[in-house]
Amino acid sequence: MPTTEASAEARVRILGIDPGSTVTGFGVLERAGARVQHVAHGTVRQARNASLAERLATLQAALAGLIATHRPDVAVVERVFVAASPRAALVLGHARGVALAAIGSAGLPLHEYAPSQIKRAVTGSGSADKRQVQAMVQHLLALATPPPFDAADALAAALYHGHAGPLAALFARRAPRARGRANRGPRFVVRRK
Amino acid sequence: MPTTEASAEARVRILGIDPGSTVTGFGVLERAGARVQHVAHGTVRQARNASLAERLATLQAALAGLIATHRPDVAVVERVFVAASPRAALVLGHARGVALAAIGSAGLPLHEYAPSQIKRAVTGSGSADKRQVQAMVQHLLALATPPPFDAADALAAALYHGHAGPLAALFARRAPRARGRANRGPRFVVRRK
Repeated sequence: MPTTEASAEARVRILGIDPGSTVTGFGVLERAGARVQHVAHGTVRQARNASLAERLATLQAALAGLIATHRPDVAVVERVFVAASPRAALVLGHARGVALAAIGSAGLPLHEYAPSQIKRAVTGSGSADKRQVQAMVQHLLALATPPPFDAADALAAALYHGHAGPLAALFARRAPRARGRANRGPRFVVRRK
Repeated sequence: MPTTEASAEARVRILGIDPGSTVTGFGVLERAGARVQHVAHGTVRQARNASLAERLATLQAALAGLIATHRPDVAVVERVFVAASPRAALVLGHARGVALAAIGSAGLPLHEYAPSQIKRAVTGSGSADKRQVQAMVQHLLALATPPPFDAADALAAALYHGHAGPLAALFARRAPRARGRANRGPRFVVRRK
């Protein structure tokens, strides 16, 4: 079950990162009490004609820059769902290692959640596809345009972290047995102002 | 077939890195003409009680420091031999990604060779164990004590890069058909001064 560092009224900046071998998505949210607001999102695209070392160096510099710009208090990255081949896992591991090193270098606490946990909370289904996550993230954060898929995944991870604590508590009071396993996590009931 | 950047008398500093999930080995050699000399070697050990992000941040900082201290011209890392599980590949990928990002950040050309290629050149057997690599690296570089295993692997990779160009050419002249596949690489015939 996720926990949060925030007291009810403290502002907490949450950086979500979705590392990928060619595109890494990011999203920054700010939580103040029970409200979560969008701050920024985007992608770091890695030139296909650059070497792997150059691409990872670009990613490292971009993430360090993002952290310096947005000064998050915590970082959130998806726990890796290892169904892929060793080759795919290795390639993903390279980008994920660079992301975790950037988070560690900035001294940020890191939270990891299973992708299915995040998807279930954001869309209602643990097996939602990228389009559904994108649409729900756009809706929940009232974004004018749909975020790129990788940024949407990063925003979803940040959203999950931002809401999980208070909503989990709320949910536990309202419907203690309704959802089966306790660690399934809450669906969001987002209040707009 | 490996190539080298060096003309006959140019000095080239070669950094070998052997990334690992808990210990990363490194070795620095300097090649001047046909001679290769030991400069430094060691390991970066990652505290077991630190988080993965902290450990990767430590590795990133240590490698950046090594590069700043020794100012290598090129870097050498083993090409990954993917026989491991996706989980093991992911874990190795994290450390390897950080190492490649450090190399890319410093603008160093990166050379990758198969472990079997390096072992065959250094020990005569592509399936040599860690002890054999350690012993041959100690011997070839005239080190007073055996280097730690991970540092020995890094030194072996650097040695292979340092010698492969000129020895490959020498070997091609002397015994063009003797070794079967052309890309097997040479065994070393190291001259001490």
